[in-house]
Amino acid sequence: MIKVGIVGGTGYTGVELLRLLSSHPRAEILAITSRNETGQAVSSLFPSLRGKLDMLFSVPDDDSTVAAFKACDLVFFATPHGIAMQQAPDLLSSGARVIDLAADFRLKDPQVFEKWYGMPHSQPELLKTAVYGLPEINRTDIRAARLVGLPGCYPTSVQLGLAPVLRQPAPLVDEMTLIADCKSGTSGAGRRASIGMLLSETSDNFHAYGASAHRHYPEIVQGLSAIAGRDIGLTFVPHLVPMIRGIHATLYARILPAAQNRDFQALYEDYYRAEPFVDVLPSGSHPETRSVRGSNLLRIALHRPQADMLLALVVEDNLVKGAAGQAVQCMNLMFGLNESTGLEQVPLLP
Amino acid sequence: MIKVGIVGGTGYTGVELLRLLSSHPRAEILAITSRNETGQAVSSLFPSLRGKLDMLFSVPDDDSTVAAFKACDLVFFATPHGIAMQQAPDLLSSGARVIDLAADFRLKDPQVFEKWYGMPHSQPELLKTAVYGLPEINRTDIRAARLVGLPGCYPTSVQLGLAPVLRQPAPLVDEMTLIADCKSGTSGAGRRASIGMLLSETSDNFHAYGASAHRHYPEIVQGLSAIAGRDIGLTFVPHLVPMIRGIHATLYARILPAAQNRDFQALYEDYYRAEPFVDVLPSGSHPETRSVRGSNLLRIALHRPQADMLLALVVEDNLVKGAAGQAVQCMNLMFGLNESTGLEQVPLLP
Amino acid sequence: MIKVGIVGGTGYTGVELLRLLSSHPRAEILAITSRNETGQAVSSLFPSLRGKLDMLFSVPDDDSTVAAFKACDLVFFATPHGIAMQQAPDLLSSGARVIDLAADFRLKDPQVFEKWYGMPHSQPELLKTAVYGLPEINRTDIRAARLVGLPGCYPTSVQLGLAPVLRQPAPLVDEMTLIADCKSGTSGAGRRASIGMLLSETSDNFHAYGASAHRHYPEIVQGLSAIAGRDIGLTFVPHLVPMIRGIHATLYARILPAAQNRDFQALYEDYYRAEPFVDVLPSGSHPETRSVRGSNLLRIALHRPQADMLLALVVEDNLVKGAAGQAVQCMNLMFGLNESTGLEQVPLLP
Amino acid sequence: MIKVGIVGGTGYTGVELLRLLSSHPRAEILAITSRNETGQAVSSLFPSLRGKLDMLFSVPDDDSTVAAFKACDLVFFATPHGIAMQQAPDLLSSGARVIDLAADFRLKDPQVFEKWYGMPHSQPELLKTAVYGLPEINRTDIRAARLVGLPGCYPTSVQLGLAPVLRQPAPLVDEMTLIADCKSGTSGAGRRASIGMLLSETSDNFHAYGASAHRHYPEIVQGLSAIAGRDIGLTFVPHLVPMIRGIHATLYARILPAAQNRDFQALYEDYYRAEPFVDVLPSGSHPETRSVRGSNLLRIALHRPQADMLLALVVEDNLVKGAAGQAVQCMNLMFGLNESTGLEQVPLLP
Repeated sequence: MIKVGIVGGTGYTGVELLRLLSSHPRAEILAITSRNETGQAVSSLFPSLRGKLDMLFSVPDDDSTVAAFKACDLVFFATPHGIAMQQAPDLLSSGARVIDLAADFRLKDPQVFEKWYGMPHSQPELLKTAVYGLPEINRTDIRAARLVGLPGCYPTSVQLGLAPVLRQPAPLVDEMTLIADCKSGTSGAGRRASIGMLLSETSDNFHAYGASAHRHYPEIVQGLSAIAGRDIGLTFVPHLVPMIRGIHATLYARILPAAQNRDFQALYEDYYRAEPFVDVLPSGSHPETRSVRGSNLLRIALHRPQADMLLALVVEDNLVKGAAGQAVQCMNLMFGLNESTGLEQVPLLP
Repeated sequence: MIKVGIVGGTGYTGVELLRLLSSHPRAEILAITSRNETGQAVSSLFPSLRGKLDMLFSVPDDDSTVAAFKACDLVFFATPHGIAMQQAPDLLSSGARVIDLAADFRLKDPQVFEKWYGMPHSQPELLKTAVYGLPEINRTDIRAARLVGLPGCYPTSVQLGLAPVLRQPAPLVDEMTLIADCKSGTSGAGRRASIGMLLSETSDNFHAYGASAHRHYPEIVQGLSAIAGRDIGLTFVPHLVPMIRGIHATLYARILPAAQNRDFQALYEDYYRAEPFVDVLPSGSHPETRSVRGSNLLRIALHRPQADMLLALVVEDNLVKGAAGQAVQCMNLMFGLNESTGLEQVPLLP
Repeated sequence: MIKVGIVGGTGYTGVELLRLLSSHPRAEILAITSRNETGQAVSSLFPSLRGKLDMLFSVPDDDSTVAAFKACDLVFFATPHGIAMQQAPDLLSSGARVIDLAADFRLKDPQVFEKWYGMPHSQPELLKTAVYGLPEINRTDIRAARLVGLPGCYPTSVQLGLAPVLRQPAPLVDEMTLIADCKSGTSGAGRRASIGMLLSETSDNFHAYGASAHRHYPEIVQGLSAIAGRDIGLTFVPHLVPMIRGIHATLYARILPAAQNRDFQALYEDYYRAEPFVDVLPSGSHPETRSVRGSNLLRIALHRPQADMLLALVVEDNLVKGAAGQAVQCMNLMFGLNESTGLEQVPLLP
Repeated sequence: MIKVGIVGGTGYTGVELLRLLSSHPRAEILAITSRNETGQAVSSLFPSLRGKLDMLFSVPDDDSTVAAFKACDLVFFATPHGIAMQQAPDLLSSGARVIDLAADFRLKDPQVFEKWYGMPHSQPELLKTAVYGLPEINRTDIRAARLVGLPGCYPTSVQLGLAPVLRQPAPLVDEMTLIADCKSGTSGAGRRASIGMLLSETSDNFHAYGASAHRHYPEIVQGLSAIAGRDIGLTFVPHLVPMIRGIHATLYARILPAAQNRDFQALYEDYYRAEPFVDVLPSGSHPETRSVRGSNLLRIALHRPQADMLLALVVEDNLVKGAAGQAVQCMNLMFGLNESTGLEQVPLLP
């Protein structure tokens, strides 16, 4: 059994990790911390776990918690950004591996981190060794990784939606005018008291946010450029959908004249043929977010509304493939398990 | 492996059966029929099942379907009422067992069936041998049953919410003035085109329906009377909630003066102590429907707002414990499996 | 023109007052205060009002605000409880009249107030002169009132739903076993940051709350007893519906044997025949909350599911008839206007 | 008073017309037809109108209906496409004017109509005289029109969102690579029984539809080209949002190098300064659909996420500015009224 600990188990990525890990056949949860809920039963906060997980939230800093974490093979951080970079060095030196679900180890350049997250990065050396946890792109590195920075929810959908057309020797599309019009359910904003996320404010309502600047923007640009091996240019506009789970990315790429005869459907199907969690739908489909609800799947459909327009529609569950499920997928890789272990839930529809 | 067939797999109880059975370790689906979707891939109708269940809907009456069903150990009917009673006799005589998720085998009295469902019952003899599939009440009979009439979604919540207080040698509450104020998500209305169930009509809206007469009323009265061993009187008012899944039953029982010192919390905890799917919450809790979403659990909490008032709050997922999950629970019993096999999903929250 | 001021205009009852008053032909808003939003344009907080109401939130205590309020004919308090009782005396002595939309002047007994609201009442003398602002019950008193305590949202629906049967010389129903099973949209919880009211928590979910004790309970008991002129007994269970606006009260009253031949439909129709805002639907109807959305209407339908059971289904918009609309209705009465002035909005459906 | 008739008053644009016209101070409704609901009270179908509009649906073809329509000054068609073109000629020749809310008189080229709507156009001559009812573009023509083809809901939002930048002597943006990523609530699909629009299917879900071809595409291309006076190229992708009302258009235009120093905010503010229903928000805003709910307003906000990218975010209520409200706006123009008469509703928020 892989002994795991979770730092910050009271948010939505935390409870989703608990859902997945509590029924994972090869993982055993040793400790879950929460500064605010110390001593509370996990199941009193998340009644869905009553009878499935009978643990208490432990105080982050006390001796028994520290000891429990040092006995872990793997520690997940489901905390706000800025926590993992403080605590990861000790855990790593005690032999544990670390997967950070927040932003501390996503961006390679500490200056970029500081600009977008408003704090200096305290571990720029660790950044160099951290592996970006997107298995479909980085599987080999993840297998060997001791420290994984897990992609954000939007970046997962945009990168996997464009990877096949960007990872090419010569450009097929105008890589400087990519557009990602993305839509997310409210759980992406986390389990935090906020007027803007009340049902009274968000239900029967729709709007964009962060249209001029969103923290996932530099991460997506970094990721797409790495995939292409060339600079890319991107416009990224996120929107809030009155639903709980799900991301829908609508991706626009202008096809270069020389590539307009390419069979993009075949290109995508070939690229993802062996992937357990990426499903390329028949051309012209319209994937629904609910078709992946509660599962680690990501589905893609392509359209060609005009000869020079490649349109990719991508759906994922932001809390699973966009967070906790991808974390478990990385864990499986890091510990030599079948990549799908504990991730075979059938999506919940309706 | 238990060989199973499903008649009418295109409704919500059908797709939920497919979700549960496709990952059940001891069941194997031989055939699924649909008159309207014959020849279609199941996964084209329910994209959540892509890659999990690669079957086609087969035509109900053709030879190969008939042969497949005759090879089944168990056939589920997820059809409108009136179908199972026509087809069950042949299947039973060919050796298959039958679980009907519709209403054909719920009501013991064929006159009552005819009154509420507007058609004569074609198999009054079979009604006598049919077992009511509520395991927490009828477990022994279900183990031996060849034909099970599965309870409706509301009746499950009301009967399990009141059973501990009714199954008593002498009445503890005024059994003639019971009230069940019930609320259901829209999936209870099935996957049928209907203006009244459009999101545009039901979202941001709330109303009662069938307040003077609902088909689940005679079933609940029959069930509660059987549990009590005495006649009971009931007012039952169902309401439609703008959500997909979930039933919340708010149950009111007037406590008799002599019983006002009873510890009802202990009574309920004792009654359900050994049950794998019934969870009695601490007194004064307010169970949420989402705390059982996607799972076979039913949770109950008791309140005593006045000395003579016993209030029971009950939640279940209408498609799982209220339909497909309870069907699988019955299957497990009928075939000697552990009752929880394939039913250990952790509820999806948020 | 009636010169009005609003204390605390940043909550949902506040913005609803602004919506109604900004198009009221006989009211002129002189000042709106907000401690947190001082100096902000009202329309920056509530973009729905851009171009309709070009004012700033003013600081509650500064001289110009105080002067503006002293020039008002009427001041509305759309604040949390505990504020109006502090500020009303000064305003009243300066000649303004006061309508409090919070709880400070609802309960007649200061001990009851203290028990349920956790603070002593600082103006027990004022309580004696305050008028309960339910026009269908208290119209004459409201016309003459200088200080009105506006009913809560639930109490409005329950009192108007039961008034015709209780305001009788001799009891028609068992007045000691009344039950009000009520359901409210989330706007009833106000515009306050809270995890429990996030869309991620409340959407696709349903639960009761305060089932053993809710602050509207003593107000309803006080109101129903006053209407009946006798003590009454009540069980009141509120529930949270995943919708923004609307209250649905499902009211159960046990009909006394001697009254089982009464025509309750006629009784209700007669009682409310002259009321501009109460609509008695044909017997057996199921009123929908959306049928009154955005309007000051309250609709009632009666059922007799059993001979001894009178079931009343009541809907209102909790922010209009349950709060701001009723406040304007009281204002109209207090200033000699037609009671419907500025309250003739057609409900928004769908 | 303007005497009006409505053909097909049972859909969502129909009920919205009734809401607006029933409180319009200068319009009087003479007749409403419905083939399916003949003889029913309008208020039995739409309880929101009880007490506001006491009429019956009349049978389309009988003599009294025909006479009533012939006495009308104006007839609205709130029917599926294909009806208005059959009935308009008679009405026009009897002296009534006509506003068609469906698609019959939107597209100038009958071949294009036939291609996208699957039926030949029976009145190609009338098409030539029909005026496109978008007042902000065509106000003068509408004033004089006898036959108006009202824009679709999406086309209204996209055309008004791009008009200021396209209606220029020389191009400011690459007019061949425009992108409109649009999102609509479910009421846009109409009041028609359909599995795909059930709450159980659309709630907690998001997807695109018609991504390769949607009937509003040729209308938008026609409109934008007319505004620009040049050919334009467009990609248009509509999506379904789990909400009732509202359209959000996210519009992408690539700014030409020579125009990158233009002040687009000033350009938009100038262009719409005198418009009663178009509101240009401060630069960098994120308009919400609810900020226009129930009103005839359309709000626009501009962003410049990259130097060469002009991003316009546009919201409207699809049933008001996208349909019935715009129809009333046209009526006001056609009959010499103030353009805002009867259209001053404050949006309903929350």
